[in-house]
Amino acid sequence: MLRSIISFVFIGFSGLTVAQPAVSTDTASDPRAVILIIGDGFDDQHVTMGRNFLAGHDGQLVIDALPVRAAVQVQTEGKNTDWVYVADSANTATTLATGVTTQMGRVGTSASDKDLTTIAQRAHAAGFKTGIVSSSSVTDATPASFMSHVSSRGCENPDIILGGELYSLAYAGCPQDATSNGGPGSIAEQIMKAPIDVVLGGGLIHFTTADPTSGKTALEMAESQKITVVTDPAMLAEADSNKRLIGLFASGHLPVRLQGSDGRVAEQPDTSALNKLDWRLGSVTQPDPITCEPNPAYRNTPGLAELTQVALDRLTQPDGKGLFLMVESASIDKESHVRNPCGSLGEIAQLEEVVSVALKYAETHPQTLIIVTADHAQAAQIIPEPSLYAEVPVPVYSPGHVARITMPDGSLMTINYATNGFLSEEHTGANVPLFANDVGQGLLPGFLRQREVHDAMANFLGL
Amino acid sequence: MLRSIISFVFIGFSGLTVAQPAVSTDTASDPRAVILIIGDGFDDQHVTMGRNFLAGHDGQLVIDALPVRAAVQVQTEGKNTDWVYVADSANTATTLATGVTTQMGRVGTSASDKDLTTIAQRAHAAGFKTGIVSSSSVTDATPASFMSHVSSRGCENPDIILGGELYSLAYAGCPQDATSNGGPGSIAEQIMKAPIDVVLGGGLIHFTTADPTSGKTALEMAESQKITVVTDPAMLAEADSNKRLIGLFASGHLPVRLQGSDGRVAEQPDTSALNKLDWRLGSVTQPDPITCEPNPAYRNTPGLAELTQVALDRLTQPDGKGLFLMVESASIDKESHVRNPCGSLGEIAQLEEVVSVALKYAETHPQTLIIVTADHAQAAQIIPEPSLYAEVPVPVYSPGHVARITMPDGSLMTINYATNGFLSEEHTGANVPLFANDVGQGLLPGFLRQREVHDAMANFLGL
Repeated sequence: MLRSIISFVFIGFSGLTVAQPAVSTDTASDPRAVILIIGDGFDDQHVTMGRNFLAGHDGQLVIDALPVRAAVQVQTEGKNTDWVYVADSANTATTLATGVTTQMGRVGTSASDKDLTTIAQRAHAAGFKTGIVSSSSVTDATPASFMSHVSSRGCENPDIILGGELYSLAYAGCPQDATSNGGPGSIAEQIMKAPIDVVLGGGLIHFTTADPTSGKTALEMAESQKITVVTDPAMLAEADSNKRLIGLFASGHLPVRLQGSDGRVAEQPDTSALNKLDWRLGSVTQPDPITCEPNPAYRNTPGLAELTQVALDRLTQPDGKGLFLMVESASIDKESHVRNPCGSLGEIAQLEEVVSVALKYAETHPQTLIIVTADHAQAAQIIPEPSLYAEVPVPVYSPGHVARITMPDGSLMTINYATNGFLSEEHTGANVPLFANDVGQGLLPGFLRQREVHDAMANFLGL
Repeated sequence: MLRSIISFVFIGFSGLTVAQPAVSTDTASDPRAVILIIGDGFDDQHVTMGRNFLAGHDGQLVIDALPVRAAVQVQTEGKNTDWVYVADSANTATTLATGVTTQMGRVGTSASDKDLTTIAQRAHAAGFKTGIVSSSSVTDATPASFMSHVSSRGCENPDIILGGELYSLAYAGCPQDATSNGGPGSIAEQIMKAPIDVVLGGGLIHFTTADPTSGKTALEMAESQKITVVTDPAMLAEADSNKRLIGLFASGHLPVRLQGSDGRVAEQPDTSALNKLDWRLGSVTQPDPITCEPNPAYRNTPGLAELTQVALDRLTQPDGKGLFLMVESASIDKESHVRNPCGSLGEIAQLEEVVSVALKYAETHPQTLIIVTADHAQAAQIIPEPSLYAEVPVPVYSPGHVARITMPDGSLMTINYATNGFLSEEHTGANVPLFANDVGQGLLPGFLRQREVHDAMANFLGL
């Protein structure tokens, strides 16, 4: 069904590739929407953990009912070799956002440090409304890769981009990208200028950190622009619908919904002195079970589904061309890094709620392509409780950290984290799942590379 | 297209549920075939390991080109709780074979020790030809679950079924299933009587082990039956096509195709004395890279694809009703248990070749449903090379065993095994992938439970 539309006019901001379409009387087809939902680290182990915990062993998730399921090969260019086999969120989000493979740590830039136009930028240039929602800082790798272009994901604000110390390590920054060096600025600065109509998440600290050269923060640099910045979810309802909206509801990442009882995460099994001498001897005591409970720090945090609804409401125009919205449940991965399965499970629940909001939207907006996928696999593994070798008269236990989660039905699901012994686990290299609604049928084959996910979305929007 | 057929007459053996259809002039539709290909332990980490190694990082496997891809929830009944979250090959193969969930270790029996009729038995009763091919002993859990019914997977022969010692542990056996106690006998004895037209794999030892009561072996007990038993692949071509065929090409499991250079498997990183005192100090040396190379022990072993072709040739009748064939690449799992990624990779290659044989068959037999799936997930994880935290001045390494595999293009893919510190790794609990050819479209949704895989196959054959 074709009908006449008037393109929406965006005023008052300039971005890297912003087009400012004038009033038009072009005919166009029904508005089209792409809602890309990324579960960071949401691999098949995490999907199954979520299913077991949220829906029960015989139940199914909202995503399980989606008619399209595929596997996505994750591809990462090496620095010394052609390819490496494990990715990070920066290179994978860049590939999803641009269709181009790149190196770990890169945000919207190619391996040769070329800025890559993102699907959100192209969608906006073509007249679509655009939104980015994340439970991380909006300057974190995944959201940033849809809105900005820097050589290294750490360059989140105008100070650190010049280099210094990051995570107690010397950090080179991205000086060639700094505003003072004629570059596009830090991720926060670029977000202030990006052609993204709605940006919601955490990360206020990066917008209030001053450039040591000019003394200005990203927020101050953008003062003259037509942007509403809110830091309290209660202010969302009042935000002027003619302005861009940036909502920053935490200094850093948004707090997560669930935690382990007594704040516990996965722990190392406790072995006897004899076992420390010889693995065949002595005994082992597994950690006590953990119950997942509400995280007090989450209490006033806006839910990811609520933010998604705000974004959809603002991005939907009666006679608009449509929209591109990326929503990230970021802390499935972050909680897995710190071996906190309850934290991951709560964020999987949030992802599920976002999918429900998207499906509800699609009921009244039939040309809505909903894609749910992960950026890369992560360290968690569901392991047997007890061990397959429990009858062997030798202590058999994980060499890493384990959490035994008491499930709603009283059974125990045991999660193992054992990719390293450091403070933060590694990502892993399995292909990741992809789910899509009926609109995705025929667009998304059962196997595709991450760049082809981008291509399918771009094709659907005619970009 | 309907046409008149004459059902094939099987003579000379009796099984649990064998029907012996007489010559018939029923009309029936075109012959239908189900080829179920099980990669034991073939989860998404192993699929990706296989893709990276066999097809390259940007390549795709034969299974990746199949039009149907789904995720399958693995379900295991607990002994003390309703459910446990990690399975073994016995309960999962039983569910695939019968549509009924059960407990770990059970072969073709329910949690209440009731014998469950398998799809192969029902297919045969309905006039289909049936075959089981595996690279394990044919008495091992996966093939056994399609052909036999015992309470414990270890009851492979007429001796051990009475109990004794297994893997250096006291073993209760399955005395209630023993022939001398009026039961159906050990797995080997049941295979000799099962309504399976072609059985190919390893496991000769279990057929030549005597029942301590009667002094007879499974082979001897079946002497009077119309079965050709071959132990040399060269004899396959001459086997009488009017008899059942049992081919046993190794004493135990068939040797695997690949091994690590110098016979090496995954190893523990070598840490300095200082690091042993404090994980933040000292240094670590990762194991040297491994190249995958032919396993000399495999040399005269028939390939799984070759055995699959033999089975298809024998099971296909010009005017037959069709066939049910299960082919297992068994040692993806077995080699993962012993931390030998090269071993697993060679068996993934074998699985791929089997899929190619099946697809070739489907070209001339269009009503052929090809399903490729795994029974459960396994311990291997692809981890970063080097660590994501390589720049941190602390030795960061896996607490388990790692193998750094030199890939055909010279890059390194690093595999981590860290579910326990015992001699054999644990299974893991992720849902497993399922792939199917075009005939599976509409029959297999994007998410299903393992019992529903059985149901889809049974429905397709009208059972």
